[in-house]
Order: sequence, then C-alpha cells, then structure tokens
Amino acid sequence: MDVRAEIDRRAKIIDEAIERYIPLKPPLELYKACRHYLVAGGKRLRPCLALLTCGLVGGEENEAVPYAVAIEMIHNFTLIHDDIMDKDSLRRGVPTVHTIWGEEGAILAGDTLYSKAFEIITKIESKGINSECIGILAETCSLICEGQWMDIEFEKKDVVSEKEYLEMITKKTAVLYGAAAEIGGIVGGATPQQRKALYEYGKLCGIGFQIQDDILDIVADEKVIGKDRGSDIVEGKKTLIVIHAMSNGIEIPGFGNPNATPEDIESAVELLSESIEYSRKKAIDFVTRGKNMLDIFDECYEKKVLLELADYLVNRGF
Amino acid sequence: MDVRAEIDRRAKIIDEAIERYIPLKPPLELYKACRHYLVAGGKRLRPCLALLTCGLVGGEENEAVPYAVAIEMIHNFTLIHDDIMDKDSLRRGVPTVHTIWGEEGAILAGDTLYSKAFEIITKIESKGINSECIGILAETCSLICEGQWMDIEFEKKDVVSEKEYLEMITKKTAVLYGAAAEIGGIVGGATPQQRKALYEYGKLCGIGFQIQDDILDIVADEKVIGKDRGSDIVEGKKTLIVIHAMSNGIEIPGFGNPNATPEDIESAVELLSESIEYSRKKAIDFVTRGKNMLDIFDECYEKKVLLELADYLVNRGF
Repeated sequence: MDVRAEIDRRAKIIDEAIERYIPLKPPLELYKACRHYLVAGGKRLRPCLALLTCGLVGGEENEAVPYAVAIEMIHNFTLIHDDIMDKDSLRRGVPTVHTIWGEEGAILAGDTLYSKAFEIITKIESKGINSECIGILAETCSLICEGQWMDIEFEKKDVVSEKEYLEMITKKTAVLYGAAAEIGGIVGGATPQQRKALYEYGKLCGIGFQIQDDILDIVADEKVIGKDRGSDIVEGKKTLIVIHAMSNGIEIPGFGNPNATPEDIESAVELLSESIEYSRKKAIDFVTRGKNMLDIFDECYEKKVLLELADYLVNRGF
Repeated sequence: MDVRAEIDRRAKIIDEAIERYIPLKPPLELYKACRHYLVAGGKRLRPCLALLTCGLVGGEENEAVPYAVAIEMIHNFTLIHDDIMDKDSLRRGVPTVHTIWGEEGAILAGDTLYSKAFEIITKIESKGINSECIGILAETCSLICEGQWMDIEFEKKDVVSEKEYLEMITKKTAVLYGAAAEIGGIVGGATPQQRKALYEYGKLCGIGFQIQDDILDIVADEKVIGKDRGSDIVEGKKTLIVIHAMSNGIEIPGFGNPNATPEDIESAVELLSESIEYSRKKAIDFVTRGKNMLDIFDECYEKKVLLELADYLVNRGF
C-alpha cells in the first residue's frame, strides 16, 4: 500500500474544505493571517486520522470532514501562538505569521482560528454529537496549553526527566491526535469501547510522532522540513534526545545559544547519534503500542491504512 | 431600586461559581495567570445580564450560572490578550497578566481560559441548547477578534469615521453583551422573537457601555478605574471623543505620544469637553434604543432591573 497516496488523497479533500470553511473576507489581512499556514500546506495527518477512524467503524468518511477541518484549525491556531513564543521565523517553508503580521496580528489570527474551529462544529447539522465533540476538543485545547506551559518551564529548568518530557509531549501534541481519532470514531458511530481504543491509538501514535519530530529537527534538511534546522538545540529545548544525552554526561555544542553556528549544530548531531537512536526506538515502541489498540477492530481497508499510517509517523523524513 | 445591589448580589454568585469552575491546579502558575483578573474583581456585568434575561423569560436564574461564568471567562480571555497588544500595565488595579507572567504566559493563559469557557458549557447537563449557545459564543469570539483587529488598524489610519468606530466597538465589545443577553434568554426558554430582542438589547447597551468606557478612560480617577488614566490618548486610540474632536479641528495634547505628561492629559481633557459631551449623548441614545427592545416583555422585576442596569452602564463612574 502507498500510505502517502492514502494521506494525500484525503489531504486534498481537507484542503478544499478549508477553502469553504474559512474563506478570505474582511478584515482581509486578519483572514489572510488566519489562513497563512493552512494554505501553505501541511500534511493534514490529524484530519486524515479522523476520516479513517470514521470509516473504520462503518461511517462515511465524508461526514467527518467538517470535524476534521476544525481539528486542523485548532492545530494551526496552536502553531501560530507557539511560533510567537518560540520566536521561530520559518514554518512550512514560509515566514511565520508574527514575522509578517506582528505579534498582535498573530495573537488575533490564532484566536480567530480557535473560535472558527468551534463555530464550524456547531453549524454541522446535528446528529446530537456536536456538543460532545466540542467538549473533547475544548478539553484537548486546555491540555495543549498545559503542555506548552510545561515546555516553556522546561527551558528554565536545569534537569528534566524523561517522565516529565513524556507528560509534556502527551499534552502538547499527542492528545490532539487522540481527539482526532476519537472524534472520527464518534462521527462514524463507534461504541464506547471503540472510542476509547481509538483515543489511545491516536495518543500513543502522537507521542511517537512528536519524538520523530524532535529527531527531524536535528537531522533533517531545512529545505525539506520547512523550518530552521536545529532550532530546538539553539532554543535549548529539552527533547528526549537532549535528556538522554545529558543523563549520559554529553555536553551539546550550541545548546541554548542563539548564536550557535551551523558547525556547532553539525558536531551536536554527531555527539547525539546514540541519543537519537535511543529516541527512535522509543518512538517505535509507542507507535507499536498504539497499533495494538486496533486489535479489537475487524480487518478492513481502513484498519490497514491506520496501521501503515502509524508506521509512517515514525518513519517519515519530514 | 438599588441597581448596584442587584448587580453585586449576582456578582457574588458568579464569583463563587468561578472558584468551582476554574480552580487552582497544576501547572499552578498557568492557572494563577488564568485566574488573575477573574479574582481581582470586575463588575460581572455580562454574567449579570445573562442571569437577568434568563429570569425575565421565566427561567431559573441559577440555571444560567455556568453559561454566565463561561461568558465572563471569554471576556477575561480577551482582556488578557488585549493587554498584551495594547502594552497596558494596569487592569482592575493589579499589574496586567503579561507584566507578571510575560507575553508567553499571557498568550497561554488567555488560550486556556478560552477553551475552559467552552469546556464548561459542554459539561452542563444538556437541555439540547449547549451546541447552540456554544455556536453563539464562538461566532461572538470571531467578531471580537475582527473588532480588535480593526481597533489596531485604526491606530495606523489618519482618519477614522464615526461609522467605522461604531462598527469596531460593536464587534469588539457590544456583541458579547448581546450574546450574554441572548444566551440567558435561551436558558430561560425564550421564543425566537424574544431572543432577537434580547440580543439587540444587549448589543445596543454594550455600545453605550463602550462609549462610556472611553469617556471614563479620560475623565475618571486612575485609582477608581484601576488602570492608567488617559491611556487611550497616550496610545493614540481613535475613540468617538477623539474622532469628534478631530473632525472639529482640535489638536489633542499628548495624543499618540508615549511620553505624554499628566499635564498633557489635563489639558487634553479640557479641550475635549465638548466632544465628551457629544459622546455622552450618543451613549445615552444607544442605551435608550436598547431599553426599547424590552417593550415586548411584560412588566416584571427582572425587566425593571434590566432597564436600570442599562442606565447604569452609561451613568457609572467606573
């Protein structure tokens, strides 16, 4: 199976829906800022999950589209605000929202996407599930904020444990994967047991995804990932790689140094090779546990795609 | 009738509910930042409206409490983010959230309040109205962002018309008053006609409230309003007062000058006296139109309070 083709086909459906759900309108610059990352691409992995889990439990993938768009908008809202906090200048190969529209503009663009996401769901002709789905999304957003708060606090801490790191990325990243998988299931008519399994599948895969993201930040080509390479090292982010290296007494060149040179990053990558390998294994562990959650479902095409998609999350090169 | 006593009695109910709905929990500093303005006071005018309109249409005021808390949280979230953008240092007599927790902390605290507001509503035992109420609130939040965006754009424009100003404050401030009045009505079982009237009542009174707020920024004592006096003048905000003065060829001392002295503000107030009077009249006009919206309701105690509350919005000294 060509899992990328499966993802891309659904990404296209989401792209078209985004145009319908968040069109350009006055104040034009506000909505340009809102749409900036959305139209710059993005892999649409979370929406894709929602469509697939909807199909997995016997629903029509199409019915999950507006929910999936809302999830992607929530994701993009967090990106806009995170980029302000992290002072990142590149995202998806384009300048970050705050570098174009200023911090004020980026705060507002994020806030607008946030409310539009909820607005979309409330406007779906109800099957009585909208309030429940909004509840899951709202709770997820609170957790995302808690995770981002922890992430910022970690920068001021000398030592962060692996356990603390995993709690942080679970909140900051993985719960939205969990929510996407569960909400897709709800739209498709999942039983309570199925919903729980889907949430866990999404969450565990999301942890794997984030660890892989941290790895890519260090090893991938800037042009391919569309953001500054080694930005986590420069910003002094305590990723699993860094935590493992520190606990092994490795000093990382350029860590937390805004003036780190490309050479610093090069030698950091070399020194971190063992920690990268350790993190890669951890990522695969989580994804494997996630895949096991799908054991309760009968074999079907969607299940096959979801299993391959899980692997893709930790094998992808960008 | 002592309208302040009516407001204060309901404010106390809201204060207690806030403690229940958004308790201190880890990460402690995040939730401290979220609660900072909420526990620093605030008049609770919007929640008060929601309770009263619920009672007006025959509902139990108590049932509107969680919705009213959500509305107050939305209001507080916008204050936190606005204060970052406006670089204000004082609010409700306490340092602004970003001056204590930094911009990052303030962005996240606002985002968290935002999601908690929606979370609260989805957790209310449903009478089938929750999705609808969330829809109104989400749409309102989008409009608030559009209004704030316009407000920021006005700073860069040489001339702003009265019409543009009214559109801006309608979005930035008045629609949340409208939503509060309508949502209270929905909880109480209002008919579609009643809902519409309540929304208009709230919106028109909200316009009056904002004009009065702009007046107070200039004329009231800093200790009483709990924020920097004349901050709108220093920031170069094009309020109705300023628009009127400019169209009459008045040059305002200290306007848009971060180094304006208290003497500048003093002489600005004197020069603006006619424009302040003009704005005061406009505010009363709007509130009068708002009150007329209540004509369709039978006489009752809640109606009496709502009429007096409308007057209070433009007569208050802080």
